[in-house]
Amino acid sequence: MLSQIKAIAFDADDTLWVNETLFREAERDFCVLMKDFLPQEECNKRLFEMEMKNLPMYGYGIKPFTLSLVEAAIEFSEGQVSNTIISEIIGIGKRMLEAPVELIDGIEGTLEYLSSKYRLVMATKGDLLDQERKLIKSGLEPYFHHIEIVSDKQPRHYQKLVNHLDILSGEFLMVGNSVKSDILPVLDIGGHAFHVPFHTTWIHERVKEPVTHPNFRLLTRASEMLDIL
Amino acid sequence: MLSQIKAIAFDADDTLWVNETLFREAERDFCVLMKDFLPQEECNKRLFEMEMKNLPMYGYGIKPFTLSLVEAAIEFSEGQVSNTIISEIIGIGKRMLEAPVELIDGIEGTLEYLSSKYRLVMATKGDLLDQERKLIKSGLEPYFHHIEIVSDKQPRHYQKLVNHLDILSGEFLMVGNSVKSDILPVLDIGGHAFHVPFHTTWIHERVKEPVTHPNFRLLTRASEMLDIL
Repeated sequence: MLSQIKAIAFDADDTLWVNETLFREAERDFCVLMKDFLPQEECNKRLFEMEMKNLPMYGYGIKPFTLSLVEAAIEFSEGQVSNTIISEIIGIGKRMLEAPVELIDGIEGTLEYLSSKYRLVMATKGDLLDQERKLIKSGLEPYFHHIEIVSDKQPRHYQKLVNHLDILSGEFLMVGNSVKSDILPVLDIGGHAFHVPFHTTWIHERVKEPVTHPNFRLLTRASEMLDIL
Repeated sequence: MLSQIKAIAFDADDTLWVNETLFREAERDFCVLMKDFLPQEECNKRLFEMEMKNLPMYGYGIKPFTLSLVEAAIEFSEGQVSNTIISEIIGIGKRMLEAPVELIDGIEGTLEYLSSKYRLVMATKGDLLDQERKLIKSGLEPYFHHIEIVSDKQPRHYQKLVNHLDILSGEFLMVGNSVKSDILPVLDIGGHAFHVPFHTTWIHERVKEPVTHPNFRLLTRASEMLDIL
C-alpha cells in the first residue's frame, strides 16, 4: 500500500545527478592515454576486470577508481607507462572530484513537493565526503532529512536503514536507477521500490530480468512520482 | 553531570584499535622507496605537505593516502620514479587495507561493561567500507548500536550526531584520542569528552593547549571509564 509510505530514500548518483557519464568519460580519456599500449576496446574490457578485482577491497567511488586506473596503466603497459601519463591519471580523478553537479531533469521539483509530505533521505554507497559535497553543490540539501551512507546495498543493509528510520519495511520506499542495488534488495525485505532508469548503466549494475512485483513501479522520470504518491 | 549521559560515542582509529602506527610505517616504507631522490626527513616533511594539500579534496583514509603517495613519488622524483616503485606504493595501500586489527589494551572489557548501561556508537571520519571491515574483524561489533560516519569532526558535525541520537548535548559523551577532533568540538556544543591519548598522534591532529573544562577528563586508558561512569 503506497498510502503507508512514511520515508522515501533516494539513491544519489544517476538518480539525483549525473554520475555514470563522468566515469564513462574518464574511462575513455584513460584508454586514449593508453593507446600506444592496447586498443580501446581491450582497454575498456581489462579496466572493468581490474575494477571488479579491486571492488571488494576498495569499494565504490572516484578514489578507488583512480587507484585502479594507476594500477591498470602499469599493468596494461607492462611497466612502460610514463610518469607524465600517471600524473594525468591522478588529474582525471581530481577533475572528477571537482566536476560540477548536473541535476537529473525534474528532480528538484519532485523533491520539493515530496519533502512536504514525507521524510526524505539520501541513501548511497559512495564516499561520504564526496557525496556530501555533491549534495551541497546540487542545492538539494534542504529537501533531505539526512544522508544514509551504506557500505553496500544488500537486503541486510536496507533492513538496517529501515530500522534506523524507526519504520516498518512496508512504510519504506526506495527510488533509484539500479535494479540490482536499489530495487531487488528493497523488495526482498518487503519495502517499496521505484525504478527510474538512467540512460547509462555500469555493466556491474546491469540486471537482465524484468521486475514484476506488487511493490514495484517502473518510471520514465522521477516527476511521475507526483502522480502516484 | 556524568549521571545524565545516555549515549557514548567512541572514535575508532587509535581509540578502539591501532591505526596511526600503520600510517607511520607506510610513510617510512615510502621514504625508503624514495631514498634515491631525497633524504628521509625531507621526504616526510614534503609528504605531509602533499597530504595537507589533498585533504580538502580527498578526505581521510587509506585510499586518499595512497593517491597522495603516488602523486608525491612522481613529484619528489621529478618524474623519474619507476613503475616498479609506483606498483609497490599501490601495494603499500592494499596491505594497509588488509592489515589485521590490533585492539587497544583493555578496550573490549570496557565496551562490554558500558554497552550494558549506555547506547554506544562508533563515530569516525574514515571510510565506511574500511571502518566496517575493521569493526567486524575486531570482534567489537556486538557492543555498538551503530556506526556514525561523519565527513569531518567540527562542532556542527557533532551537533548533527547528537540530534540524530535524539538526545541533548549534555547527555552525550565522546571518547577519543584526538584533542582537536574528538574533544574540543564536543565541549564546544556542550557535550562531555574523555581524552585517551594514543602514543603516536599525527602532526595534523596535534593541539598544544591543555584542556581545562568541567565536562572534560584526561584518562591514561579507556578502562578508567569504568571507575568514573
